[in-house]
Amino acid sequence: MTRPVLAKLRREVWEANLQIFHGGLVTMHSGNASGIDRRQGLILIKPSGMDYERLRPQDLVLMDLEGRQVEGQWKPSVDFPHHAYLYRHCPDVGGVVHTHSNYATAFALLGQPIPAYLTAIADEFGAGIPCAPYVDNEGDHIGEAILKHRNRAPAILLANHGAFTWGRTPRAALKAAVMLEDVAKTCYLSLALGKPQALPGEEVEKWYRRYHTTYGQKTGNRE
Amino acid sequence: MTRPVLAKLRREVWEANLQIFHGGLVTMHSGNASGIDRRQGLILIKPSGMDYERLRPQDLVLMDLEGRQVEGQWKPSVDFPHHAYLYRHCPDVGGVVHTHSNYATAFALLGQPIPAYLTAIADEFGAGIPCAPYVDNEGDHIGEAILKHRNRAPAILLANHGAFTWGRTPRAALKAAVMLEDVAKTCYLSLALGKPQALPGEEVEKWYRRYHTTYGQKTGNRE
Amino acid sequence: MTRPVLAKLRREVWEANLQIFHGGLVTMHSGNASGIDRRQGLILIKPSGMDYERLRPQDLVLMDLEGRQVEGQWKPSVDFPHHAYLYRHCPDVGGVVHTHSNYATAFALLGQPIPAYLTAIADEFGAGIPCAPYVDNEGDHIGEAILKHRNRAPAILLANHGAFTWGRTPRAALKAAVMLEDVAKTCYLSLALGKPQALPGEEVEKWYRRYHTTYGQKTGNRE
Amino acid sequence: MTRPVLAKLRREVWEANLQIFHGGLVTMHSGNASGIDRRQGLILIKPSGMDYERLRPQDLVLMDLEGRQVEGQWKPSVDFPHHAYLYRHCPDVGGVVHTHSNYATAFALLGQPIPAYLTAIADEFGAGIPCAPYVDNEGDHIGEAILKHRNRAPAILLANHGAFTWGRTPRAALKAAVMLEDVAKTCYLSLALGKPQALPGEEVEKWYRRYHTTYGQKTGNRE
Repeated sequence: MTRPVLAKLRREVWEANLQIFHGGLVTMHSGNASGIDRRQGLILIKPSGMDYERLRPQDLVLMDLEGRQVEGQWKPSVDFPHHAYLYRHCPDVGGVVHTHSNYATAFALLGQPIPAYLTAIADEFGAGIPCAPYVDNEGDHIGEAILKHRNRAPAILLANHGAFTWGRTPRAALKAAVMLEDVAKTCYLSLALGKPQALPGEEVEKWYRRYHTTYGQKTGNRE
Repeated sequence: MTRPVLAKLRREVWEANLQIFHGGLVTMHSGNASGIDRRQGLILIKPSGMDYERLRPQDLVLMDLEGRQVEGQWKPSVDFPHHAYLYRHCPDVGGVVHTHSNYATAFALLGQPIPAYLTAIADEFGAGIPCAPYVDNEGDHIGEAILKHRNRAPAILLANHGAFTWGRTPRAALKAAVMLEDVAKTCYLSLALGKPQALPGEEVEKWYRRYHTTYGQKTGNRE
Repeated sequence: MTRPVLAKLRREVWEANLQIFHGGLVTMHSGNASGIDRRQGLILIKPSGMDYERLRPQDLVLMDLEGRQVEGQWKPSVDFPHHAYLYRHCPDVGGVVHTHSNYATAFALLGQPIPAYLTAIADEFGAGIPCAPYVDNEGDHIGEAILKHRNRAPAILLANHGAFTWGRTPRAALKAAVMLEDVAKTCYLSLALGKPQALPGEEVEKWYRRYHTTYGQKTGNRE
Repeated sequence: MTRPVLAKLRREVWEANLQIFHGGLVTMHSGNASGIDRRQGLILIKPSGMDYERLRPQDLVLMDLEGRQVEGQWKPSVDFPHHAYLYRHCPDVGGVVHTHSNYATAFALLGQPIPAYLTAIADEFGAGIPCAPYVDNEGDHIGEAILKHRNRAPAILLANHGAFTWGRTPRAALKAAVMLEDVAKTCYLSLALGKPQALPGEEVEKWYRRYHTTYGQKTGNRE
């Protein structure tokens, strides 16, 4: 029975969409979050141009990996092809978030990556956040740029555009989006005042390892 | 029967006023939103100097295009003449919003336009946001400056003053005001840190075209 | 009968205190608002070190102009002497607000006034916001510095410290505090990016005059 | 009977955790607050990786000073050893808070202390906020760095990492964390615009003394 699985995923995707809105990562109806049911190869994503305040779980659009609409009265986000590209090429990705959050996008507008300046970056991302050069919105240009320029971090900046984050679940992708904006803000403030020094690689490993082994409860909130 | 039309417009103008307040675009009782019923040539606008928290739909002031008060116990916003000027000269404008939102006004204070730095600017505005030189508050100076210096974008900065946005509906004008402040913030942050590059005109067109054709639901949230 | 008068004043002083808190002008229990009943020469002010969330109208402390506590179970704000000094020397002042709001205080920390850069400054203050040199907290040093360095604007910065605002009522003082922080933010952003130009004196007059004559409802929200 | 004491402490630690979250000092499940019952030598601390929105008083983890878990279904924060180190070495500390709040951490990322620029810093901290050099997360490195580099202020920055604050109670530690971020923001803004001057030591004393003697109610909100 697939219903229970989709109901849980639907709730999680809906919550991720609400949280990027209430967390101030998106304005009006920009941005979007999605999640995939890997057993069925089905993706739930925000409808195009719908206000977050009005979004109900049943408004999410159900798509297959090739971009066919399976269910839903609304058209999917115009960014759906980029989400689908990531799901097709990254079997470990279960959720994707796209925002134009201000501080992350300020770096993106400069085409400037965010080095591993902070222990919080080491914790969550295990590396600096890379920035892909500008690409347009045609075909798979965005998806290809993400795969080509990403590193270990589940986040990337797109020049003159915004950010994509991902994770094992929609909630993990959401968390990466929230943490990205948070560390982007702190790093931005430092860069506007002085010359911060990135953590050496071996220090990054210490924090990343602790965060991904002893941190959190058994299976709960780690990602 | 004109009642139902005005009731819908009244609600939309009231909501636009509430949203510029709750979105942090205005403080105390600065700023204002209006909408026009084109069939009757009647404009609903915020009363002068009234707190947003206390504003009820019935407090909106009904004016005609020549500035005669048709209905309402309050005096209209002192900015009414600028709204009316836009309605008289732009038949496709159905709503107007005026704010002193911080980041947009920081550019205005410098007399500095916001180039089409971001895909979000291309999406919403299809061009950079121009900045009109300083004009005083007498006669039609503000309205004339807006018409003289505007481009395709439904938004303009007024030097040392603030911003005006407009659209087919009050809600569209509101959306332009919210998106203006959002992109102004991101562009501001980048400019304070480095040298962002504007998108070339043909790239702006790609985003604008997609946003104004395939984006959104049928007739719903596009503007 | 003095009760009704004090009940109204008490409510207004209480609301001004709540609004500086909810407006983000103060943190924890910093800052304070007061109001005076001129017929009786009695001042209501926030108690010292009390959290805004817990503040009830009856917690306000009633003082006379010479600093004697008339009523109330709590000690008055340690800033009471500065409020009282303003009430004693400025018969037209009915309310006083003191905050360390971030952008205004950033100017104060630099000992830097805020010129009349914006039409919103001309509207509300009719002049730039002056900055008094640093003074300590002893005797009437703060009150004296305010009177010595103020101009027409109902607001002043105190170097390395914060801001005082005042008005005919506690609500007017509150409004000045809110508008001060708002214009301080916009001016700050511009100054960090470029070289804004102040409005010429005759332009300041145009906005000030309009705002203090035709703006607002009959007697309502003008101050 | 120890129950009533722990119930009160549990509530206070829970509230301190909620307030660092609602005050915007932490995002997702970063940061943590703890408190100690000195008579029993027992510490209550936030569980590792638990969302603040879901945190209930009974979720707090009870630990002894040597790091043995006494009670609680969850694992304690991975930062527990640093909290315990402070409790073991500072008998007057009753509460500890750790955050990555943006402005404080922007200074930390630069390895830059915050001088006693503001009367609010003199009031609350009685000294500038020092910054310890970068240390990793192993053993007692963080606790040792805090003790080695702290001054009179109940707050310290950790380079490339964040901030720790403390006080006689969890609430006092919370207040120090909130005030730290508030003054860090104001000082940051000034430093990005000009050259602020620190208060001379004797001026710092005047404010500190007033704040720690005449400020607040009898025993109430002073710390």
